[in-house]
Amino acid sequence: MEKGTFSDDELRAMSPKEFRNIVRSGDFTGSTGICCQGYNQANLVIIPKDLAFDFLLFCQRNPRPCYVLDVTEAGDLHPKLMAPDADLRTDVPRYRVFKDGKLVDQPTDISSYWRDDLVGFLLGCSFGFDWSLRAANVTFRYIGAYTSNIECISAGRFHSHMVVSARLVTGRRNAVRAVQISSRLPASHGEPIHIGDPPVIGIKDLYHPDIWAPGAIAPQEPDETVIFWGCGITPQTAAMESNVPFMITHSPGHMFVTDKLTEEMAIL
Amino acid sequence: MEKGTFSDDELRAMSPKEFRNIVRSGDFTGSTGICCQGYNQANLVIIPKDLAFDFLLFCQRNPRPCYVLDVTEAGDLHPKLMAPDADLRTDVPRYRVFKDGKLVDQPTDISSYWRDDLVGFLLGCSFGFDWSLRAANVTFRYIGAYTSNIECISAGRFHSHMVVSARLVTGRRNAVRAVQISSRLPASHGEPIHIGDPPVIGIKDLYHPDIWAPGAIAPQEPDETVIFWGCGITPQTAAMESNVPFMITHSPGHMFVTDKLTEEMAIL
Repeated sequence: MEKGTFSDDELRAMSPKEFRNIVRSGDFTGSTGICCQGYNQANLVIIPKDLAFDFLLFCQRNPRPCYVLDVTEAGDLHPKLMAPDADLRTDVPRYRVFKDGKLVDQPTDISSYWRDDLVGFLLGCSFGFDWSLRAANVTFRYIGAYTSNIECISAGRFHSHMVVSARLVTGRRNAVRAVQISSRLPASHGEPIHIGDPPVIGIKDLYHPDIWAPGAIAPQEPDETVIFWGCGITPQTAAMESNVPFMITHSPGHMFVTDKLTEEMAIL
Repeated sequence: MEKGTFSDDELRAMSPKEFRNIVRSGDFTGSTGICCQGYNQANLVIIPKDLAFDFLLFCQRNPRPCYVLDVTEAGDLHPKLMAPDADLRTDVPRYRVFKDGKLVDQPTDISSYWRDDLVGFLLGCSFGFDWSLRAANVTFRYIGAYTSNIECISAGRFHSHMVVSARLVTGRRNAVRAVQISSRLPASHGEPIHIGDPPVIGIKDLYHPDIWAPGAIAPQEPDETVIFWGCGITPQTAAMESNVPFMITHSPGHMFVTDKLTEEMAIL
């Protein structure tokens, strides 16, 4: 349905350019979780130039949820470092538009919202390290994204609680491996924010994520460890908590796919 | 002489706060290479607010020479993340003042230059990983800083060749260890930019660094490997190459000492 006429295998095997072209033509509006195996995906934030310094500083101060991959010049549609032939207006399967801190639209194309003073930010995404976990035979279930009680370091007019994503990782050894593998990938959120006990970071109900879930969540098994990473939905919460006048983002799970392999950006 | 009345052992054993107080009082105006063992040192850049977004973006695009540790709000004297009780006007042993792309002054105190629209940046410094190399028994000689032929990625009005620092590391095994150890320390320039053959990155004479050297350089020994890292003097070259109207920096080798241990900021 949302995935149009493409099988999971087809989506997995596509190049980022092929995939973005299909998104651009309107033929795919779904979640990108399994698209373009091995390629780093990105959270998108678009804001007016007069807020760009404050937001860039917010990201610099909070690199685990908001690792900066690319920043466009004002009015430029093309993220030159991550995907120079992409178009920020059309190449994300679904967007969100925030005005005065409120979500007002969720279009699949933002051409009608585009302005020459807009600056685009691509931020790291955990769908990147998922491929590295799978490549290391670490079995896990992505279960959802939650508002934590962790306060981000504020910058100018941006303040926010940190949004975190949760995975259930199978096996004690793999919980340690997941820390090691993700630590190598700062451009995909890097090391976890928290391991275990969800209430410690303010999450009361693991089975009902308040921000986003790709589907229903089966109960945690005895050999599973819940691990939390910073999440690039944090700027959307910042838009609401900081009452930001205008911000466009991707819709959760509906990411921008970059031309860079996740392992191309690994440390060690 | 430049080191005042303090022995190397005394300088090595000082806490960052003690050391900054001595600098603030004018009793130390020398190089900080061996000061405050284990603590991360920082390059300083101070620019007017209207250039701050372009410069922050320049740093984000060039993290090996310009890794951002802390950015102050305009007019704020205190780097809250790295050393909240420090004063940017007085706590660096020697400064440089650039106007219209030219070096015009090298004072030990910049109080007379301070303005309420100035934004301070602290950027990672390789003196941080020197302690980690020594702790791993990697023997090396820091020999100097050079202008390379590597073009930084430009941002707004900032463009520059990358300045690099060079070390001669003793032993083949230690050359590999130096890569591993520095890769763990992105906040201290991270992994090397280049290993071996200096002309490949545009350095014609290893023995006469065009930017800075702490002393005369004895010839390379057969068991030494020359390794180059990004250098935080790069913004000073950017000030000159980009004809920046106003910028204050530290003087090469005369760094800001932070309250953070280098290993506190290590990845893995």
